[in-house]
Amino acid sequence: MPVNLKPPLPAQLFPIKGVTLGIAEAEIRKPGRKDLLVIALEAGTHVAGMFTQNRFCAAPVVIAREHLSIPEFAIRALIVNTGNANAGTGQTGIGDARATCAEVARLLGCDTRQVLPFSTGVIMEPLPLGKIIAGLPAAVADLREDNWLAAAEAIMTTDIVPKAVSKQIFFKDTPVTITGIAKGSGMIHPNMATMLSYIATDAALSQPMLLEIARHATENSFNRITVDGDTSTNDAFILMGTGLAGNSPVRDRESAEFAQLRDAITEVAAQLAQAIVRDGEGASKFITIQVEGGGSADECSKTAYAIAHSPLVKTAFFASDPNLGRILAAIGYAGIENLDVNELQLFLDDVLVAENGGRASTYREQDGQRVMKQSEITVRVVLNRGDASATVWTCDLSYDYVKINASYRS
Amino acid sequence: MPVNLKPPLPAQLFPIKGVTLGIAEAEIRKPGRKDLLVIALEAGTHVAGMFTQNRFCAAPVVIAREHLSIPEFAIRALIVNTGNANAGTGQTGIGDARATCAEVARLLGCDTRQVLPFSTGVIMEPLPLGKIIAGLPAAVADLREDNWLAAAEAIMTTDIVPKAVSKQIFFKDTPVTITGIAKGSGMIHPNMATMLSYIATDAALSQPMLLEIARHATENSFNRITVDGDTSTNDAFILMGTGLAGNSPVRDRESAEFAQLRDAITEVAAQLAQAIVRDGEGASKFITIQVEGGGSADECSKTAYAIAHSPLVKTAFFASDPNLGRILAAIGYAGIENLDVNELQLFLDDVLVAENGGRASTYREQDGQRVMKQSEITVRVVLNRGDASATVWTCDLSYDYVKINASYRS
Repeated sequence: MPVNLKPPLPAQLFPIKGVTLGIAEAEIRKPGRKDLLVIALEAGTHVAGMFTQNRFCAAPVVIAREHLSIPEFAIRALIVNTGNANAGTGQTGIGDARATCAEVARLLGCDTRQVLPFSTGVIMEPLPLGKIIAGLPAAVADLREDNWLAAAEAIMTTDIVPKAVSKQIFFKDTPVTITGIAKGSGMIHPNMATMLSYIATDAALSQPMLLEIARHATENSFNRITVDGDTSTNDAFILMGTGLAGNSPVRDRESAEFAQLRDAITEVAAQLAQAIVRDGEGASKFITIQVEGGGSADECSKTAYAIAHSPLVKTAFFASDPNLGRILAAIGYAGIENLDVNELQLFLDDVLVAENGGRASTYREQDGQRVMKQSEITVRVVLNRGDASATVWTCDLSYDYVKINASYRS
Repeated sequence: MPVNLKPPLPAQLFPIKGVTLGIAEAEIRKPGRKDLLVIALEAGTHVAGMFTQNRFCAAPVVIAREHLSIPEFAIRALIVNTGNANAGTGQTGIGDARATCAEVARLLGCDTRQVLPFSTGVIMEPLPLGKIIAGLPAAVADLREDNWLAAAEAIMTTDIVPKAVSKQIFFKDTPVTITGIAKGSGMIHPNMATMLSYIATDAALSQPMLLEIARHATENSFNRITVDGDTSTNDAFILMGTGLAGNSPVRDRESAEFAQLRDAITEVAAQLAQAIVRDGEGASKFITIQVEGGGSADECSKTAYAIAHSPLVKTAFFASDPNLGRILAAIGYAGIENLDVNELQLFLDDVLVAENGGRASTYREQDGQRVMKQSEITVRVVLNRGDASATVWTCDLSYDYVKINASYRS
């Protein structure tokens, strides 16, 4: 069951002027399950995209990257299907992804190159193109500004809870809104994951600023989470700026408005990223891993991920077993040059567990046990060799993870 | 249940002249469980050791490395306890490890620095030194040449099957014998694992040659296996040469005898390493991952390990589900520079699964299904960009892995 994660109420999700969303049931997945989403954007909307670094990237990722790279054709629509990833599908898959864009373009009256395609689901099966084409008119007919929650539901795969977050900030007296959705609960790893996220704002700002914010937000949200260490073929995060809030455009990157907007968008992205982990396949605990006092951000990240990826650590969390030596072992093999294990400290929430190369003299098993029983736990490692730090969010490894992934296709 | 792995018969294990083994029950583990092993070596025996690269290495690893580095004190004995790893135990742990060596030395009449200590079990708990000291006289009294199988049983932790392999080769008419034991079934990763292995030969050869063979054998056996990607704090592989076979000493590294002996010892080590995977925690399948045609051995290894570590791939094997796109995804994120996914081929045993960036036109689901149902499966990736290759052995990820590791201490 998802860890402290509830579906948002529709009223909590503010529409974004210039963005409409339409959903449909194209029968790619089970009957009764929405599996198609179209997002339409007003002319003048800036769009920035961040994609998976997997070399086996899916056909829609190839096409989305291609379409985003043609400045003459501003993006006017996104199409997302679930149930099939259109990955490992070779040249046929590329053609299929293009064909879905062409059909959306035809229905909306724009160019094929103004449409970005996205797919998520099973890999290495041909995309059911006919079903998608047949489902598109209903999705387009459904386009509405207040469809964010339905959109969040339509992009779910093994997700249990739809993920959507909305936030409002003020530029002087002008309200500026940010609303986003995300999906993903397995194959989650830094460098994106089987995750899709779409965040829109009505703030007026330039395309380069939007891109910079997309990078910053990704680095501090979707690239900070891991469920199983698998990096997917299809990950994408799209940031859209319609510019219709009525604010005077953000002046430059040094302005207070830029920082305010960047931080608000990053917070929305981080909440969506954390929601993905809370809904991680089989997750029963939400774990924050914080590594401080490192010589570099990179070594802090490495250490945090070594802990977050260790199946032994993750099963210990599942069992609420303070078998904390497993965390020490993971720190030890994280690959930090010249690490002196006698210098570091390990905390579980506020409990000092280890120092001087071994168990802390003040540590009592019942204190560790108390924290391990919580549904939210912070592991804090203080390396005491510098000022850098890094945080990673992850979940435990349970029977249900194996169950879900051993039966995904059946 | 272990995959196609049976305990060896005592008669299959040849004694090694100059090596005696004694076991005892020191009550570190459950009642009725042998948990202490002493190996005594004749004067003149050469010893080489390979150890974990974990920075949080256990106290016995620190001491064993130290004692091996003093050429004036030839190693005369090894002491191994299970049930407690003496890792993450700080300075106290170091003192405890030394104290066990001192007691063995006193009982056998040698110097403390001629004894190597080894521990395996729970991390970050103080070593029950008193129990070990109390158990040692019984282990020493038990020293016998034909005790290899009992020794293999005494070093087991979560292992189900004792692991021991013996082999005889001939140098002209002189038989030369190699016998080895190993333990380990979880926390198994390249760069050693929670594994201990002791291999002895009666072949006469120099210390530098023995060390070179130990390195070669490790690289092609224990460093080629992974169960869960965790590198332990305590891994060690010790190779011992008593020189009592009566062969004329191996002349040099270019000789046929050197190659023959190196390959035979490597084969014993590889069989022990594979036995560890076959007995992997919760394993139901034995998977060989073979990557060929790579630009370098390193990129082949990276690819093989990316596949071997993917929980998604491992759960698919457990479910006998040919969800083979997960393997493509793992290849894609293995981190190979400029990988062209359209060039590679993926085989499952003899079945061509993918080429040209997608599913092979000849591939039929029932062929993939047939192979996935086997208990032994070879995944073969042909990168078609060079001549290098690498092989890794691993197992699937099952409910039982989670069960075993969620309840290890209880």
